[in-house]
Amino acid sequence: QDEIDAAVRMLLSLKLSYKTATGQDYQAGLPPRDLALINNGTAKEEDEDFVDPWTVQTSNAKGVDYDKLIVRFGSSKIDTDLINRIERATGQKPHRFLRRGIFFSHRDMDQILDAYENKKSFYLYTGRGPSSQAMHVGHLIPFIFTKWLQEVFDVPLVIQLTDDEKYLWKDLTTEKAYEYAKENAKDIIACGFDVNKTFIFSDLDYLGTSTGFYKNIVKVQKHVTFNQVKGIFGFTDSDCIGKISFPAIQAAPSFSSSFPQIFNGKENIQCLIPCAIDQDPYFRMTRDVAPRIGQPKPALLHSVFFPALQGAQTKMSASDPNSSIFLTDTPKQIKTKINKHAFSGGRDTIEEHRKYGGNCDVDVSFMYLTFFLEDDDRLEQLKQAYTSGELLTGELKKVLIETLQPLIAAHQERRKKVTDEMVKQFMTPRKLAFEF
Amino acid sequence: QDEIDAAVRMLLSLKLSYKTATGQDYQAGLPPRDLALINNGTAKEEDEDFVDPWTVQTSNAKGVDYDKLIVRFGSSKIDTDLINRIERATGQKPHRFLRRGIFFSHRDMDQILDAYENKKSFYLYTGRGPSSQAMHVGHLIPFIFTKWLQEVFDVPLVIQLTDDEKYLWKDLTTEKAYEYAKENAKDIIACGFDVNKTFIFSDLDYLGTSTGFYKNIVKVQKHVTFNQVKGIFGFTDSDCIGKISFPAIQAAPSFSSSFPQIFNGKENIQCLIPCAIDQDPYFRMTRDVAPRIGQPKPALLHSVFFPALQGAQTKMSASDPNSSIFLTDTPKQIKTKINKHAFSGGRDTIEEHRKYGGNCDVDVSFMYLTFFLEDDDRLEQLKQAYTSGELLTGELKKVLIETLQPLIAAHQERRKKVTDEMVKQFMTPRKLAFEF
Repeated sequence: QDEIDAAVRMLLSLKLSYKTATGQDYQAGLPPRDLALINNGTAKEEDEDFVDPWTVQTSNAKGVDYDKLIVRFGSSKIDTDLINRIERATGQKPHRFLRRGIFFSHRDMDQILDAYENKKSFYLYTGRGPSSQAMHVGHLIPFIFTKWLQEVFDVPLVIQLTDDEKYLWKDLTTEKAYEYAKENAKDIIACGFDVNKTFIFSDLDYLGTSTGFYKNIVKVQKHVTFNQVKGIFGFTDSDCIGKISFPAIQAAPSFSSSFPQIFNGKENIQCLIPCAIDQDPYFRMTRDVAPRIGQPKPALLHSVFFPALQGAQTKMSASDPNSSIFLTDTPKQIKTKINKHAFSGGRDTIEEHRKYGGNCDVDVSFMYLTFFLEDDDRLEQLKQAYTSGELLTGELKKVLIETLQPLIAAHQERRKKVTDEMVKQFMTPRKLAFEF
Repeated sequence: QDEIDAAVRMLLSLKLSYKTATGQDYQAGLPPRDLALINNGTAKEEDEDFVDPWTVQTSNAKGVDYDKLIVRFGSSKIDTDLINRIERATGQKPHRFLRRGIFFSHRDMDQILDAYENKKSFYLYTGRGPSSQAMHVGHLIPFIFTKWLQEVFDVPLVIQLTDDEKYLWKDLTTEKAYEYAKENAKDIIACGFDVNKTFIFSDLDYLGTSTGFYKNIVKVQKHVTFNQVKGIFGFTDSDCIGKISFPAIQAAPSFSSSFPQIFNGKENIQCLIPCAIDQDPYFRMTRDVAPRIGQPKPALLHSVFFPALQGAQTKMSASDPNSSIFLTDTPKQIKTKINKHAFSGGRDTIEEHRKYGGNCDVDVSFMYLTFFLEDDDRLEQLKQAYTSGELLTGELKKVLIETLQPLIAAHQERRKKVTDEMVKQFMTPRKLAFEF
């Protein structure tokens, strides 16, 4: 079903491109009336990437072309100037995700910094769709980065668990979706968030306990038409009305009035959303609606996708245990998975490898190291040694295994200490340690 | 805007009929390919009534043809047997709205009675869309009847004020819509509901304070597609996603788990909905979904429409002050409005009237008396006297004026005594005086 949905969305997207390029509706078997239009127009190249919240597809082994995505989505590149500005504003060395282009795109981050430099605070909003109990290391990317942002800027954070979305999209009961939300909250808490500065909420739960959340949802819902969500998300007439109206539920936490307990009812507090780039369609929509309902547009920081072990062509799937390293994997499982499944940019034989060197651009072990190895110099050395052929695939994999094993073991240790009581605390609507 | 919307819905409905009748999409200027199909098909008669929650149109001065509507909607007629059964079950004389066919149609009322006779209770659910502060007498019909049902069956009652719907459909802020809801609650409370047995709620308010309501909404939203709401409510791609998903919000109070405070979390309590027949589309949809989400189908009692002073062709409009008697009208205003605007079934001259008699079927004053004059014998006498020409239009209007003036004065007296504190009490989620 998911595959068919993705294919239909792809088809709709192609039809739309066709129309954009030719000014004509696509009709099977009929050539466009004016071929010149296509050549001069904005027709997609055949190998163009497809990115929306449910599907990420690219034919390139290096992964999605993010520079093109920035142009297509109309966001801005996170360049050296912006990274330097963040360093100056916070007085902290930029996070490796910034240094290495893992968070690569933004919207209005300069305005966040303008305001911050004038002592005007903001809050962070990120989230997760809790589709199963098992989270993989890729799921941690936004949380690791958000935790760093929270620490260096000292701002409040809200984390949305879209259990309602998972109920709508998957074959799940509301009870099961809520259970996953609470389980996932444990892994999120294990990232080290400060309970005095962080509110984690399940939609199924919080919607019924907040006086502000639903009001913002219905305001967004009034200002977005079916035509718009059809264009943005590829919904069809056969989709349930829950899916069709859901984007408003992911939009609403961008407005501080959705959290009257935290912000004391204040409505104009700026929001910054760190997320993977596939979530941008939700927030393009939100930014479009915001001024029309008298709210500030949320700013965004976009990350690249975390590649599957099998290669960067696709986003990882929590449903395929071999597609990634899970947070529950044992040291042995980690070792086996990396050795067995991590796509290698090395050569077919040791001799060839020594002679021609490996390709870091497509090597998944190296990609994973850019995410998780903190030491810049070491990473650079590994890159040079692998590219020159000095370092073999097995040796590179060994570095990754030795990097991930202790990180995941430490995560598991912290997670063990997260009690149900702590989850309850994080998930209770309350005042945080900030004045507004 | 409303008129255009109604016209578009009418057009869509006609196009649908065209397609049903001919099996072909309607194209302007193109005759159907096979005319024989139309004559043998199910094409609507030209003068067929149009009824949905926003538009009621009929070309017949007697009003909508309710027998046809029962067939079209697939509901059941409230016949003498059912009325007698209600009388036996409750030990009370049936309400004049039942005796006179004002509540004329039902779904599963026999099952409600079966269960009631076996000591299995149910709850009542009705509602109102609070579009303006001023309510007219027609708005009271469901509440007058619901109050009677509550008394004779001794059951709990929930009353939904769809302020979110009004926000979505009208040019209103959420604050204004909520204010109207609280103002309208005063008129509803003035009907004499028992605070220990009645919960009145605004959607904008209650959705954020109930742990059960949103869960039922999202369950309904998962099981209804855009295609379905398009067919049922005539929504189009240009409608906002709030309108498209709203039907689930009117559906959810049909399930007792939407009110965990009242029903102690019990999920299987049967619901009975007294409402005007134009609301039936919402509950046809609800009854279709109910078994798929493991809930009992709500039963229904449908009323006819309350006619406008100008005649039964249309439903009254709260936005036209001369289209009805408002609950805020003075005795003088009531008198003037009836004398000036109530459509008469009398003859053009006194001589003709004496000779040929008046027509009660189209006379609005007589119609209003069927709603508000309690005495059956007196009503029958008036009918005979007016039909025979013995009673003149002015005399009939005088009876109506003398009937309505004290009723409305008494309502105003009771309404004055409704304090903000009482509204708050009625609108606080709480346990009612029943055990479940």
